[in-house]
Amino acid sequence: MPGGEIRFAASELEARTFSALREAGADEASAGAATRAMMHASRLGIDSHGVRLAAFYAEALRSGQVNGRPAPRLHRTGAATATLDADRGLGHLAAYAGMEAACDLARESGIGAVGIVRSTHYGAAGAYALAGAEAGYVAICTTNADSLVALHGGKARFHGTNPIAAAAPVAGSKPWLLDMATSAIPYNRILLFRSLQRELPAEVAADPAGEPTRDPFRAEMLMPLGGRDFGFKGAGLAGLVTILSAVIAGARPDHLVPPMNPEDGSLPQAHDIGHFCLAIDPERFVGRAGYDALMAQYLEGLRRAPASQALAPGDREWRTLEERERSGIPVDPDTARFLRLA
Amino acid sequence: MPGGEIRFAASELEARTFSALREAGADEASAGAATRAMMHASRLGIDSHGVRLAAFYAEALRSGQVNGRPAPRLHRTGAATATLDADRGLGHLAAYAGMEAACDLARESGIGAVGIVRSTHYGAAGAYALAGAEAGYVAICTTNADSLVALHGGKARFHGTNPIAAAAPVAGSKPWLLDMATSAIPYNRILLFRSLQRELPAEVAADPAGEPTRDPFRAEMLMPLGGRDFGFKGAGLAGLVTILSAVIAGARPDHLVPPMNPEDGSLPQAHDIGHFCLAIDPERFVGRAGYDALMAQYLEGLRRAPASQALAPGDREWRTLEERERSGIPVDPDTARFLRLA
Repeated sequence: MPGGEIRFAASELEARTFSALREAGADEASAGAATRAMMHASRLGIDSHGVRLAAFYAEALRSGQVNGRPAPRLHRTGAATATLDADRGLGHLAAYAGMEAACDLARESGIGAVGIVRSTHYGAAGAYALAGAEAGYVAICTTNADSLVALHGGKARFHGTNPIAAAAPVAGSKPWLLDMATSAIPYNRILLFRSLQRELPAEVAADPAGEPTRDPFRAEMLMPLGGRDFGFKGAGLAGLVTILSAVIAGARPDHLVPPMNPEDGSLPQAHDIGHFCLAIDPERFVGRAGYDALMAQYLEGLRRAPASQALAPGDREWRTLEERERSGIPVDPDTARFLRLA
Repeated sequence: MPGGEIRFAASELEARTFSALREAGADEASAGAATRAMMHASRLGIDSHGVRLAAFYAEALRSGQVNGRPAPRLHRTGAATATLDADRGLGHLAAYAGMEAACDLARESGIGAVGIVRSTHYGAAGAYALAGAEAGYVAICTTNADSLVALHGGKARFHGTNPIAAAAPVAGSKPWLLDMATSAIPYNRILLFRSLQRELPAEVAADPAGEPTRDPFRAEMLMPLGGRDFGFKGAGLAGLVTILSAVIAGARPDHLVPPMNPEDGSLPQAHDIGHFCLAIDPERFVGRAGYDALMAQYLEGLRRAPASQALAPGDREWRTLEERERSGIPVDPDTARFLRLA
């Protein structure tokens, strides 16, 4: 955050974010879940999904696009499976509940999966995978989203940025934590590069004809991870996320999801996306002691590997967490105003 | 296959491959499973993992590195989980058995997971995901492997090429089928480009100092999917595969796996890798009819999307299958000699 960076204590940001959502019509559980997920992102340095989204969710609540007082319904369908109808509430509430249910199923049956439907944007997918890992499980969480990413060689938006988040417990340490879009970059990085008037990295975005462009003002769609040569892999992973989150669960495929932020200024329609939560109990495989020993051995090898920076997924985020606990969390001026911090 | 391409009928290749493995000491079940997996790859055009591997497996059987007469042991550990000790047999036998068990668990409990240990190279991961989809499940299969891929910014081999394979049933059609290494290219493509004296694609391989190189003779390690800017995503996915296949299951992490093909000519040691098989029953989520309708809707959208070639994962392979059923399967001269075809 260049220029006049303003930092705030996490506790203050958390309280203001919660209040802002309550004032916009969210009930206590919904405001609490969305605040928790946004604070996860803000604490760990994933600012694109941090408290800057509070204004966006407040608007979605006020417009009625998102139901601030949902009655989510969990329905057990097997020894290891359940579905969850999010009742068009904030996706955060549904995803935390879904991951908790997946962990309960895994405790009972070794692995648990929950498919969530009639849900909305849930912020950083890693928040829910992390919750699963903190409960002791290897956890995976995916969501589909409205179309922003071209197919490999595509000339129009098709998939959402469809993240894959995964987390795994590490004995005596913070979890291993991967949270990645299946596009190379998120869409809001194009907007950021427009405001900075900077060139995009190569092969991350395409112009309206589907040709790769580094000009953020000509960028009309994202390209899948892998770029011009290997984008079929990113597109394949995006499709896997759609199948898990929408097709299995029973939500709309990405290309039929109305955008949450219509660019033509029209009123947003009901969003209706799906999420998938998976929890695996290592106890039912190698056993907890064996798992802990192998995970330690894997990470020790990784940290000793010759590299410019031998980082496990999450390492950078946990360092940011420490730094921000000491020095506060930077907030952009618009968000600070919205949260009545400045 | 440039130059003197020789083609053979699938049935002939299959019989010769099976015989070659039997002669090398594999029992009927092992030879049958390995042949089935190699023929999957050869039929679908994944020639790197097709019958050209028969000579390699025969050598591993003859040296005793792979147990040709294994007694795999499946152990049920929960309503939805099991482990499988592959007894150092051909990985194909273990992986087909593991996926079949995962499907049985999913039929009973909605989702099923099997962790496989004490296993060896299993060829194309997609063979097992496809078997799960053909049985009616959304199926995922992963394996770890010996080190060939640098970390993001890494200067040494660390992860295996650690594939992610996934398949999903499509009513009235061949399954959706994704089978991708988490490196940009497989290692044998470097060897192929050496023999062709051709430049590698950009940012797929690195020299001994970890610098990206397009010279196949200088390439010492693969780079993770995503290249110089986004390789942390490919490395993160490779790590997820290691955690699922080795850490949870109880096999060795990639960097401790002795190579199957020691480049210094030393005798290969026991390989000991792990696989992970997951099967999900759509019946326990949106239901079969809902799943079929959403999958059709998703694929219809995909095939209509403006693109130079709007292909779903698997489309190219199913076309190759048709073409090879008509015209036979091309085999390189060395493999043709080994299989006594030429």
